[in-house]
Amino acid sequence: MLRKILIVGAGKSTSYLIDYFLDKAKEENLQLTIGDINPKAIAPHIAEHPACITLKLDVFKKEERQKAISESNIVVSMLPARFHMLVAKDCIQFSKHLITASYVSDEIMALDQEAKDKGLVFMNEIGLDPGIDHMSAMQILDNIREKGGKILLFESFTGGLVAPESDTNLWNYKFTWNPRNVVVAGQGGTAQFIQEGTYKYIPYHKLFRRTEFLDVKGYGKFEAYPNRDSLKYREIYGLEDALTLYRGTMRKVGFSKAWNVFVQLGMTDDSYTIENSQGMTYREFVNLFLAYSPTDSVELKFRHYLKIDQDDSTWSKFLELDLFSNTKTITLTKATPAQILQEILEASWTLSEDDKDMIVMYHKFGYELNGKKHQIDADLVVTGENHTHTAMAKTVGLPVAIATLLVLNKRITSPGVQIPIKKEVYEPILKELKQYGVLFKEHKVPYLGYNPDTVAS
Amino acid sequence: MLRKILIVGAGKSTSYLIDYFLDKAKEENLQLTIGDINPKAIAPHIAEHPACITLKLDVFKKEERQKAISESNIVVSMLPARFHMLVAKDCIQFSKHLITASYVSDEIMALDQEAKDKGLVFMNEIGLDPGIDHMSAMQILDNIREKGGKILLFESFTGGLVAPESDTNLWNYKFTWNPRNVVVAGQGGTAQFIQEGTYKYIPYHKLFRRTEFLDVKGYGKFEAYPNRDSLKYREIYGLEDALTLYRGTMRKVGFSKAWNVFVQLGMTDDSYTIENSQGMTYREFVNLFLAYSPTDSVELKFRHYLKIDQDDSTWSKFLELDLFSNTKTITLTKATPAQILQEILEASWTLSEDDKDMIVMYHKFGYELNGKKHQIDADLVVTGENHTHTAMAKTVGLPVAIATLLVLNKRITSPGVQIPIKKEVYEPILKELKQYGVLFKEHKVPYLGYNPDTVAS
Repeated sequence: MLRKILIVGAGKSTSYLIDYFLDKAKEENLQLTIGDINPKAIAPHIAEHPACITLKLDVFKKEERQKAISESNIVVSMLPARFHMLVAKDCIQFSKHLITASYVSDEIMALDQEAKDKGLVFMNEIGLDPGIDHMSAMQILDNIREKGGKILLFESFTGGLVAPESDTNLWNYKFTWNPRNVVVAGQGGTAQFIQEGTYKYIPYHKLFRRTEFLDVKGYGKFEAYPNRDSLKYREIYGLEDALTLYRGTMRKVGFSKAWNVFVQLGMTDDSYTIENSQGMTYREFVNLFLAYSPTDSVELKFRHYLKIDQDDSTWSKFLELDLFSNTKTITLTKATPAQILQEILEASWTLSEDDKDMIVMYHKFGYELNGKKHQIDADLVVTGENHTHTAMAKTVGLPVAIATLLVLNKRITSPGVQIPIKKEVYEPILKELKQYGVLFKEHKVPYLGYNPDTVAS
Repeated sequence: MLRKILIVGAGKSTSYLIDYFLDKAKEENLQLTIGDINPKAIAPHIAEHPACITLKLDVFKKEERQKAISESNIVVSMLPARFHMLVAKDCIQFSKHLITASYVSDEIMALDQEAKDKGLVFMNEIGLDPGIDHMSAMQILDNIREKGGKILLFESFTGGLVAPESDTNLWNYKFTWNPRNVVVAGQGGTAQFIQEGTYKYIPYHKLFRRTEFLDVKGYGKFEAYPNRDSLKYREIYGLEDALTLYRGTMRKVGFSKAWNVFVQLGMTDDSYTIENSQGMTYREFVNLFLAYSPTDSVELKFRHYLKIDQDDSTWSKFLELDLFSNTKTITLTKATPAQILQEILEASWTLSEDDKDMIVMYHKFGYELNGKKHQIDADLVVTGENHTHTAMAKTVGLPVAIATLLVLNKRITSPGVQIPIKKEVYEPILKELKQYGVLFKEHKVPYLGYNPDTVAS
């Protein structure tokens, strides 16, 4: 019998996801329906594939949406997270399994009992981060605990970066996913974590000055700034007794120091609009955040305010962006500082067609076993092929795809709203991911506890 | 005929307000009713005054509230701003005038037409700031405009400070009004103003590093950090064409540099609670915001993180607060950082019984008249008598009291929701305030435009 998979939303991260289903269509007897607001943008090799149907789907049109969902066997929602709920409610109504790569929202969680009652799997957080981070961490944590080990330390770092061969700017960074999320990253709450049993709190305006450093074999030195929510994982991962719990976002060294300048100026603020933004030069934009002077240059005011010495290598990063340009202008009307900054950065940081991105994930597991302290580090590096087949699309899309098939094939059966922290889920997915080159390297390293030498305070 | 004034809320700022009415009770034929949740706290010389009635009034109890309001001729609400609405609606219902010292909220503004229809005066923002600032600024602005002058610059600064004779700590500051408002001051939005025709935006985390300096004759040098809302006053004061518009809060020089350290650490954050705050030492509290180290002292981490040199005079300000104490502990349970910081500061910054506070207000008016540029500066300094008869209570309470009597005596008659920017209002009030020593000194000074030499960037 033909099994019908409905993908809602055919955005950026769906290239590998769709390829996976089409590759398996014959042997697995799959029919893929891709519903998107703009189905014409779907590449011909996909749209014309015999196992594929594309259709115009406006998720806000109830009839369109319910028809597509009711006719499928399983639904994959690749919509922005805030729209999943529209799909999820229909999945309950028509008794369909649902797969998403997004964080479980409170409203999705509220459907848990209904999903359970109907025997439906609502699998979420099954992309990269969240997703592969959960699965890889839980596999090693469960291993350690099965041997009788007691977890002392868990640190986890992820970065969506540019591959060394495409790393052509002074920031060592290009946008490989939603640029807006990068510009406002770290906002929305104080970062909270634990180091050696002590709670630590870092406000947004200090986030990029409290980076930690880490080396990834073969890829050099990286830095990481703390994520907002490290403590959230304590219960989920069963780490109530760990002395150190830290999650961070990776960048190449030097990025955060320069990014902090935008934060300090107020350029990442998304809470108010600038009346006369359209037509404003980059230079005028910068000057909004500097004191008035009838004589001093914007450059010198900038250096003085942000304490950037004349020989500080950060400076050339701003010049590279043409931040002081008298001729380049902003096109956005009534935009927030964050939107304007995004426009300026997109002019410099957009992947070209052949650019390759790179995903790096790094976990540290410290534990005590038979009275001795140990540490395992595990790292994952995935490089993209080009600007559509990105490492980001691969590491988000493949786990979603594999999970979808596992649910269809009744290999994953626990019903309800869940995330991939059970062995039944992570084991087959991590195993299959290896075939696609998505695999962790584990290293035994000496246990040092949380290592203060790596802190830049 | 006896005229009945109802004061709702007999809090800190009501000493002068009540004294004013009682002093005038005989000649003006007044009866004063003071309704408060805790009427026993009202001083005997007030409660036992023949013209005064005190009563227990819980504003959330409709019957109590409506009885008191319906029996009065005019109502003065000295409640926290968010509770005025309860009183205001009853004032509409029972056709009573209403006086408050608070900012006009959207919901109060929505009563404008009803108040007008009933011929009621709803006078707001008639304390110090807002209040005396409006009146004194409008008087001089109207004068300049009547002569044909065109306003180029308006800057206004206000500070609730401690008088020189009671200035006994290194911060040159004590709490003379609601400490909470001082701790969270500047939060809730980017500061926006105009200098020489250029918009300027300062995020909260830079607010206390972008101070301006000003001298007040006889009182020395002050600094000011920008208020959030300078642009709001453009329309209200008719300053659409002014090149410079700035409102700021005054402190003694050096306060902001040290206060910025609390901001940078994240100690003024009121958005999350600290689980184990009760019993935590001051030192442990500080360490929450510093990187972990197995060896380094909290003091050195603090100095290094905030870049406080070994000879920086800011340092002793923190020692004075006992911020690194291993023995002093926090009593609050599950408190926010801002609440904890407030507890620490109140231990040092509370007015003693004989301490005198001081209000300073400073306006600058730049204008063009007959092709020449001019500037008038105007300053007000009011010193308190003791910790109940404060300059704050005087400058908030007297304008409220005077306005109340003017409305009762039909000297202020324009109905509707309003603020004191009309001549009919500010002229008699400013005139009467002079009798109480609340008066501005005006100085003609050379017009320099916005003077960048006074900027600390």
